[in-house]
Amino acid sequence: MRCPIRNQLNAGFLGLGSFLPPEVRTNAYWPNGFQQRDERKAFIEIDRSTDGESVALDPDIAAAMAELANDPFRGARTRHVIGDDANPSDLEAEAARVAMRDAGVLPSEIDLVMVVSLVPDQLHPSNAPAVQAKCELTRAVAWNFDLGCASVQPQLIAASALINAKVYEKILMVQSAATSRVVDLTAPVSAVMGDGATAAVIGALPDGYGILGHYSRTDGSLRDGVVYAQMVDGKPQRRWDRAIGPIRLTSLDPASGKAAGARATEFCKEACAGALADAGVSIDEISLFVCNQSLGWFLEACRRSIGVPREKTIDTFAEVGNLGAASLLFNLDRASRTGRLKDGDLVLLYSPGAGFTRTAVVYRWWARRGVR
Amino acid sequence: MRCPIRNQLNAGFLGLGSFLPPEVRTNAYWPNGFQQRDERKAFIEIDRSTDGESVALDPDIAAAMAELANDPFRGARTRHVIGDDANPSDLEAEAARVAMRDAGVLPSEIDLVMVVSLVPDQLHPSNAPAVQAKCELTRAVAWNFDLGCASVQPQLIAASALINAKVYEKILMVQSAATSRVVDLTAPVSAVMGDGATAAVIGALPDGYGILGHYSRTDGSLRDGVVYAQMVDGKPQRRWDRAIGPIRLTSLDPASGKAAGARATEFCKEACAGALADAGVSIDEISLFVCNQSLGWFLEACRRSIGVPREKTIDTFAEVGNLGAASLLFNLDRASRTGRLKDGDLVLLYSPGAGFTRTAVVYRWWARRGVR
Repeated sequence: MRCPIRNQLNAGFLGLGSFLPPEVRTNAYWPNGFQQRDERKAFIEIDRSTDGESVALDPDIAAAMAELANDPFRGARTRHVIGDDANPSDLEAEAARVAMRDAGVLPSEIDLVMVVSLVPDQLHPSNAPAVQAKCELTRAVAWNFDLGCASVQPQLIAASALINAKVYEKILMVQSAATSRVVDLTAPVSAVMGDGATAAVIGALPDGYGILGHYSRTDGSLRDGVVYAQMVDGKPQRRWDRAIGPIRLTSLDPASGKAAGARATEFCKEACAGALADAGVSIDEISLFVCNQSLGWFLEACRRSIGVPREKTIDTFAEVGNLGAASLLFNLDRASRTGRLKDGDLVLLYSPGAGFTRTAVVYRWWARRGVR
Repeated sequence: MRCPIRNQLNAGFLGLGSFLPPEVRTNAYWPNGFQQRDERKAFIEIDRSTDGESVALDPDIAAAMAELANDPFRGARTRHVIGDDANPSDLEAEAARVAMRDAGVLPSEIDLVMVVSLVPDQLHPSNAPAVQAKCELTRAVAWNFDLGCASVQPQLIAASALINAKVYEKILMVQSAATSRVVDLTAPVSAVMGDGATAAVIGALPDGYGILGHYSRTDGSLRDGVVYAQMVDGKPQRRWDRAIGPIRLTSLDPASGKAAGARATEFCKEACAGALADAGVSIDEISLFVCNQSLGWFLEACRRSIGVPREKTIDTFAEVGNLGAASLLFNLDRASRTGRLKDGDLVLLYSPGAGFTRTAVVYRWWARRGVR
């Protein structure tokens, strides 16, 4: 069963955890016709140019979009929303506690916690110290480790290397999205974003498990496509140290945002092919493809582009929306808890992220007990 | 010469680079009496309680402060300030180019760039993609890796582990401060902050060089002590997604900020003792102690607390001020370029950072050629 392994780190998931805030918002929250009306202005809607013209779409993206063509919410049904009195680090701490229980690891055993928060409690410092304090990680150092929605694989790679190099033994990695706080709830994009947090405990695994291959690239020329900026007279401002206005998820260069969207399948194919080649395995050997679900069509387009059958994917977009940096582990956790992963299965993890970064990992699943 | 080594990663600095923006501001910029007048309100001025009362100070802090007692600028003489038309990532890219030249490494050889920006170009995404693009790191992935002013040692630890585990071969780490943009130039704190950037290329080193020991801890209970927040009616706001006002370096809990300051020497002793014990070396074996220079008294107080003679320190506070996350490599680079480091020397690197984190590394210096 064990293939030749080129990049064996013998480290990986000891436990996973997810937390969704209790408040659920259904599509009934938005007024009738809401999303149709503003569709052409919607965030990273890539089937129209910035001038409103149709553009030539990759066939896999077009096919995935076609399935949702008559749905004003483009696949979204429900999404969880952080409570007004909660902090994003509260969601993170809840997910972290679940992951530590799942792994059977005590907070005092954690050497390092690495955190990415799409919407941190404060603009500085990051939420990493908040998670350290709230989870009582008495001996941990807290790193902010952030590649936006593409953070999980780099966190997993770094954690695995630190364990392989015997720098640390138990590492907690945490991701969250509380994006409802940076989109106006009157804006179309608000219907596709969901709030939630995920976490994993990383430790040493038996020989042959964990990361088998990886591939990551950043193309910073697209970095202005998706940003946070203050809005003044409806326009995003470049100088946040000077501008005075509400901070929103927006774009300083809509053409870059659309380019990243239009290249969704190109980036997916590149990253997944790179990780598979690095691992020395073929796409047919993959048991589960876990992917961000940025928009309703995203996972389906990616799946088609790399030739993974639908039954080897997991899709929770309709239920939770775009969980940003927390999408990947939310879906991996769901797959694990619903019995879809067995010991030795190969999992392909793919995420794009604002910046723009694409990153993929081929991972051999270790099932410590029962389902997991 | 080689001591027994417990945590050998055989990776470390191949090259260093610093960049200071050309504009220099002297003390003459501030009006007469400026700093005396507001001294008791100054940022992390820990010799007064929040009520203005004197507090019992650690003797090492008191002695270090006493040396500056008659200096209204408390040791600051000049500081560089980022130009109005520059972005912080421009400083970072300049420092990165110098480091790559120093290492003899091409941009196309860099596998990973990790960046911390105390004042990033945008609130999201981080500057890491900007550095990737500006330096034409064609095959690199770009990580935002941020522990505020305590970022250098964690970046070095992660980079060394990634190289040791054969995940990557050449890693660029970058730090910057453009803090002049988040302090009002009428505020006392503006006189101690300086702008600049640093970078290092990390790669494999011969056996016995690089990190010998390390120690890092975060105490997130102090995280509200130093923050960025919008100011409304002179008061920092907790909800940045809602508040509308200028974003400034401030405190949501001045008592926590003062506590971190008052515990400066306690944290330094704890972290340095931890790193020395991990390395299995004594403080007397250290050739150079490199420390953040948060305020004029900071390095002197830390040096006294761990019993390092002044001639084994490097202090550029008067010249460049508090460079935040860039302080440590700026001083290490300066020490290297002025012939103060020879092959095999043991260096102790210590930084505290907002959050609150303290981190120390014992490092064996590798001199590839000549001075370095």
